[in-house]
Amino acid sequence: MSTTDDLPTKSPSDSVTEMAQVVLPNDANPLGFILGGTVMHLIDIAGVIAGHRHTRSLLVTAAVDGLEFLHPIKVGDLIILRARVTCTFQTSFEVSVEVLSEEILTGAQRVTSRAFLTFVAVDTDGQPIPVPPLLAENAEDERLVKEAHRRRKARLETKLKRKNETGTRH
Amino acid sequence: MSTTDDLPTKSPSDSVTEMAQVVLPNDANPLGFILGGTVMHLIDIAGVIAGHRHTRSLLVTAAVDGLEFLHPIKVGDLIILRARVTCTFQTSFEVSVEVLSEEILTGAQRVTSRAFLTFVAVDTDGQPIPVPPLLAENAEDERLVKEAHRRRKARLETKLKRKNETGTRH
Amino acid sequence: MSTTDDLPTKSPSDSVTEMAQVVLPNDANPLGFILGGTVMHLIDIAGVIAGHRHTRSLLVTAAVDGLEFLHPIKVGDLIILRARVTCTFQTSFEVSVEVLSEEILTGAQRVTSRAFLTFVAVDTDGQPIPVPPLLAENAEDERLVKEAHRRRKARLETKLKRKNETGTRH
Amino acid sequence: MSTTDDLPTKSPSDSVTEMAQVVLPNDANPLGFILGGTVMHLIDIAGVIAGHRHTRSLLVTAAVDGLEFLHPIKVGDLIILRARVTCTFQTSFEVSVEVLSEEILTGAQRVTSRAFLTFVAVDTDGQPIPVPPLLAENAEDERLVKEAHRRRKARLETKLKRKNETGTRH
Amino acid sequence: MSTTDDLPTKSPSDSVTEMAQVVLPNDANPLGFILGGTVMHLIDIAGVIAGHRHTRSLLVTAAVDGLEFLHPIKVGDLIILRARVTCTFQTSFEVSVEVLSEEILTGAQRVTSRAFLTFVAVDTDGQPIPVPPLLAENAEDERLVKEAHRRRKARLETKLKRKNETGTRH
Amino acid sequence: MSTTDDLPTKSPSDSVTEMAQVVLPNDANPLGFILGGTVMHLIDIAGVIAGHRHTRSLLVTAAVDGLEFLHPIKVGDLIILRARVTCTFQTSFEVSVEVLSEEILTGAQRVTSRAFLTFVAVDTDGQPIPVPPLLAENAEDERLVKEAHRRRKARLETKLKRKNETGTRH
Repeated sequence: MSTTDDLPTKSPSDSVTEMAQVVLPNDANPLGFILGGTVMHLIDIAGVIAGHRHTRSLLVTAAVDGLEFLHPIKVGDLIILRARVTCTFQTSFEVSVEVLSEEILTGAQRVTSRAFLTFVAVDTDGQPIPVPPLLAENAEDERLVKEAHRRRKARLETKLKRKNETGTRH
Repeated sequence: MSTTDDLPTKSPSDSVTEMAQVVLPNDANPLGFILGGTVMHLIDIAGVIAGHRHTRSLLVTAAVDGLEFLHPIKVGDLIILRARVTCTFQTSFEVSVEVLSEEILTGAQRVTSRAFLTFVAVDTDGQPIPVPPLLAENAEDERLVKEAHRRRKARLETKLKRKNETGTRH
Repeated sequence: MSTTDDLPTKSPSDSVTEMAQVVLPNDANPLGFILGGTVMHLIDIAGVIAGHRHTRSLLVTAAVDGLEFLHPIKVGDLIILRARVTCTFQTSFEVSVEVLSEEILTGAQRVTSRAFLTFVAVDTDGQPIPVPPLLAENAEDERLVKEAHRRRKARLETKLKRKNETGTRH
Repeated sequence: MSTTDDLPTKSPSDSVTEMAQVVLPNDANPLGFILGGTVMHLIDIAGVIAGHRHTRSLLVTAAVDGLEFLHPIKVGDLIILRARVTCTFQTSFEVSVEVLSEEILTGAQRVTSRAFLTFVAVDTDGQPIPVPPLLAENAEDERLVKEAHRRRKARLETKLKRKNETGTRH
Repeated sequence: MSTTDDLPTKSPSDSVTEMAQVVLPNDANPLGFILGGTVMHLIDIAGVIAGHRHTRSLLVTAAVDGLEFLHPIKVGDLIILRARVTCTFQTSFEVSVEVLSEEILTGAQRVTSRAFLTFVAVDTDGQPIPVPPLLAENAEDERLVKEAHRRRKARLETKLKRKNETGTRH
Repeated sequence: MSTTDDLPTKSPSDSVTEMAQVVLPNDANPLGFILGGTVMHLIDIAGVIAGHRHTRSLLVTAAVDGLEFLHPIKVGDLIILRARVTCTFQTSFEVSVEVLSEEILTGAQRVTSRAFLTFVAVDTDGQPIPVPPLLAENAEDERLVKEAHRRRKARLETKLKRKNETGTRH
């Protein structure tokens, strides 16, 4: 079986993706604030595009960590999403997605969400395939790699703990 | 200011919500599997409905923890979402959402995702308001309360750590 | 050819389906009331899910009877749909769908619509196939079966009358 | 209070409406046939446009009678809807909607559905208001008026019967 | 290879298409006016339906000329689109689309946009195929043919000029 | 009345906007190619975002020039849109939008469309307001300004010619 060693390394900048959208009425709750679910949907799309740019393969979403909504985004504002690969494993990898609001009348931008998505690279049968290794290029890149490993470890521990407990389902 | 003590307690069953949907072509990737973003969107809707049933107030999504995608759901299958409140804090609370696939031709169901969403109850000005306390009714309910507190603690610690580091943004 | 006798009977509870949705701005007219067409769309989805649960086959919608809109549902309210099979024929069957509104701030629920949908079970070539017989379990179930036969008879009579008249098209 | 006598009569041709759409993948089931719910949604829109042209008022959908699906429409085909007012009452009126499929490669058209929708004219407070009387212009128009009265009578009788029975809800 | 001479001529009236839609909140900007992009989307659909009616083939959109937005259309108003083929070339042809607004409360109509779309007829491999010649039936039809040739000439000249310049891309 | 002289100049880079999207099944025709109307919709959104970034005002779309579709984009590919302001007039301005396809498995990009959109800056009453002047910063910027003036002149001439002819409407 092929391994990640057979694949050329890629730099974080190879996967950088930017998306901009206008927030429409149907994306919002009765307060006129964007729905969490709409943001989550866009985060997954931005993440998967960054992932395609790194792996040049089909992908499935495996997990989302650390997703927070810090400030509301209003109908009529812009929502900006920036995504890039932060760390690669064997057949999976992590993408960070940062979400910003931009007021159209002032240009004021604020970070409103951040999330870390794990994707698995798959072939056309849906079977996992190796992903190109990521080459961290500076201290910031290396910090993100370390954080990604920490998040992955925490997620796998939680998963194991859940399996060992009974009656988890509601 | 009013507190949660002024509000009548509610039981977990007061917020139980079930949603069912048919997975349509536009919800899916080229493999014919539902997009992660579509599932996330539906999880937020199921969660917010459960939340409305507990608080009878407007809500904003604050965070998502532990979101995993365990198995793909195919176009034409059913996606079933079950949500309930697991734990309440002062002005926020946690909802667990379990996602199942159901094959229409066999009826086979499997759990495909689970997530814990934190919502904040707000008034019509978007200001946080107290939420009715949740009355755990059995050992399983109590276990979920404990887990929710653990998740919240971990999330706040991560948040604090991020603030103390520099250069976090990509 | 196989008949319905070859198929195991099912009880009405086997097909019970519940859906909940938040009414969004795009679902509504300028009065802020949900569009009839949006409700009709959701009724068909709830009905077809209940139908899949009874037949475990592909389905096509054949007719809708007795669809009424009793009260408006406002943007921001919840729309709840409850569906179950009421009666089976050879290759077709009837599903009843009840629609309720739920005000998010008060929890007040009211029945806003009811409809009876007839579906035909089909194979992958779109050809009709027998449906599992429904086993009425109590007096209420039997009343619904009788009503369904009455509705079917009335519909077939109307169809025949139309055929015998000329110039029906506008 | 104003009555329908204060309003100028309108002819059936004043409300004639035609809509054409291309059937897209998301409108269809796994057989590639348009969903009943999509057709119902379009029927309501065509009906309400015809209704606006007759009343020049806001409208709410009150009932749907005689909705049948005679033939499937495939993805990529055209769906054509033709609507016109058939009969007016005090504050409500009936619209007939005929649905046709049109194959893009052959031009072959067939009637696939027909439905009769009842709308209520309302003011900006949602209160019923009189509708302009319809002037039947020929024998066909008069036949449609008679049929509409028959449908309305049957619907009101069914409604009354339901009220007098107990245990109707499932 | 077959040519347009092998195909029966069609008259402009063979392709006439009318569409009507209600403008919904999600179609509009914060002023409550329909988005240009929504109108453009509907113009393409109306144009392609008219094109299918002329060619009875698959089509791809090749160009849009002269698209203007003269007046805003408000949420709740009707948008009416009228399309017809104006001129045929070898494997491509031009469709004119006229857009009107209709106020539901007054019936007032105004032309809000007009556009000329060029489509290419293609087979199932996406290869261009000849289109049936258009038979201009009166002076107005002939004027539209002349105008279409003028538009095509101007477009091809612009294209050529662009190719001869360097550094066009931004 | 205020004029454009009262407003600070902006550089073309102030308005640069990039959007990326995955092409979904519902965006495509039966050949699996993106619909022209979907591209047009996205072009308008990318253009209006670039426009907001230049004017920091509300906007309405006034015209589209030179829109061509050079190559098809397939379902599952990425569509990339790049927009920037090219020229400002008194209360209106031109934005160029370039559309590229990106194959997810190879990364191959090609320009598939280009369009020039004219927007009018408006206040909350929908009345035109002056736009900040654009400062061309290099030869390429100046060439785009000249081209934009040429396009505007051609459009106004066509408009005038149409007015002087009779029987233009079909």
